[in-house]
Amino acid sequence: MLSTTKRTEINKGQHKAVFDPDQLDAIIDESLIAHIAITTESGPVIIPMLAWRVDRHIYVHGANNSRLMRNLSKGEPSCLTFTLFDGWVLARSAFHHSAHYRSAVVFGTFERVEDKQEKDQVLNHFIEHIAPGRTDHVRLSSDKELAATMVLRIPLTEASVKISCSGVNDDKSDLERPVWAGVLPYRTVVGPLEPADGLSDLPEPDYSAAYGDRWHRS
Amino acid sequence: MLSTTKRTEINKGQHKAVFDPDQLDAIIDESLIAHIAITTESGPVIIPMLAWRVDRHIYVHGANNSRLMRNLSKGEPSCLTFTLFDGWVLARSAFHHSAHYRSAVVFGTFERVEDKQEKDQVLNHFIEHIAPGRTDHVRLSSDKELAATMVLRIPLTEASVKISCSGVNDDKSDLERPVWAGVLPYRTVVGPLEPADGLSDLPEPDYSAAYGDRWHRS
Repeated sequence: MLSTTKRTEINKGQHKAVFDPDQLDAIIDESLIAHIAITTESGPVIIPMLAWRVDRHIYVHGANNSRLMRNLSKGEPSCLTFTLFDGWVLARSAFHHSAHYRSAVVFGTFERVEDKQEKDQVLNHFIEHIAPGRTDHVRLSSDKELAATMVLRIPLTEASVKISCSGVNDDKSDLERPVWAGVLPYRTVVGPLEPADGLSDLPEPDYSAAYGDRWHRS
Repeated sequence: MLSTTKRTEINKGQHKAVFDPDQLDAIIDESLIAHIAITTESGPVIIPMLAWRVDRHIYVHGANNSRLMRNLSKGEPSCLTFTLFDGWVLARSAFHHSAHYRSAVVFGTFERVEDKQEKDQVLNHFIEHIAPGRTDHVRLSSDKELAATMVLRIPLTEASVKISCSGVNDDKSDLERPVWAGVLPYRTVVGPLEPADGLSDLPEPDYSAAYGDRWHRS
């Protein structure tokens, strides 16, 4: 069970709150894009970043000389939000229109991964997550490349999850209206793979294992 | 041309910066989900919200008694980020793996839309955006529903756009490696419509005009 802290307490739409850590992990693993906030003199700034989970940490990476990475590594409180949009709820009244979505908000403080081998491992973990088996084939990172890369991690200990998936919820008095109601689903389709220019006659790899029914073959 | 302010200046990946306002509008109109930051005593919090554009303003809405809406309406600097994820770039080296995406970061200060008729209009505009023609059929909002809804808007004057779509960019020395390289595209498919329970024998509406080739029929 995810525990509730002052920051993770859900104020509105409490019926959408979910406390199952597996659901939290699933949202992070499917999104892979986190919106991350930093606070500047002129207010908050939100940057989308690639973010992936290994066990109970979330990792992000960037160039060593990136202002954003330096800012995130300062040890100030951060927030990472992951959102998957699943569709529109088209109700019989304008007022009850809404959305299906899954979202996770994670709070914590980033710390730098200093160890070169650990950096290499978590970066390769990311590639394996999006393309299973790929680290057996690509050129792995050199010492110089690893030194130019900053990896940060945040523990996955304080988080809240909201899932909205309950369909149309019209007022009783609207149910007999002659208006179509239902859900307009959004779905992400992954693939088919598009080969790079100048690729010699290599067989197309199969990464479908990572995507289930979202995978589309060419 | 989008002008550059201190907040919108792009620090890393300047070759991905885009200054065409039509591209900004297109990203907002396709996303419809904004990640919005508020600053609290315990650090920044990012909430995903429905957000839509009418001319040169972005609108969000929520319940009048929502803590988030009250916070956003206080007149402090806000940041809204829109991100569309378009796929993975699978390079020949681990280091050059990256992502295709389109993102827009908007800065400004929210103000309340007080006028009831204006509120009604922009809320209906939102429904028309996701389901063209639908406001001719649904029950429109009552005075009580409008009074319970807070609508906020932010001018679309200070924004930065980044688009990454350039494919694989390997080191020359890696080009002859026997490893498949290319792009794994992500695509959003909208539909087919899923009727609500207990819907009488009404014809399915056609909202395909709003979605182009993302639309899927049942």
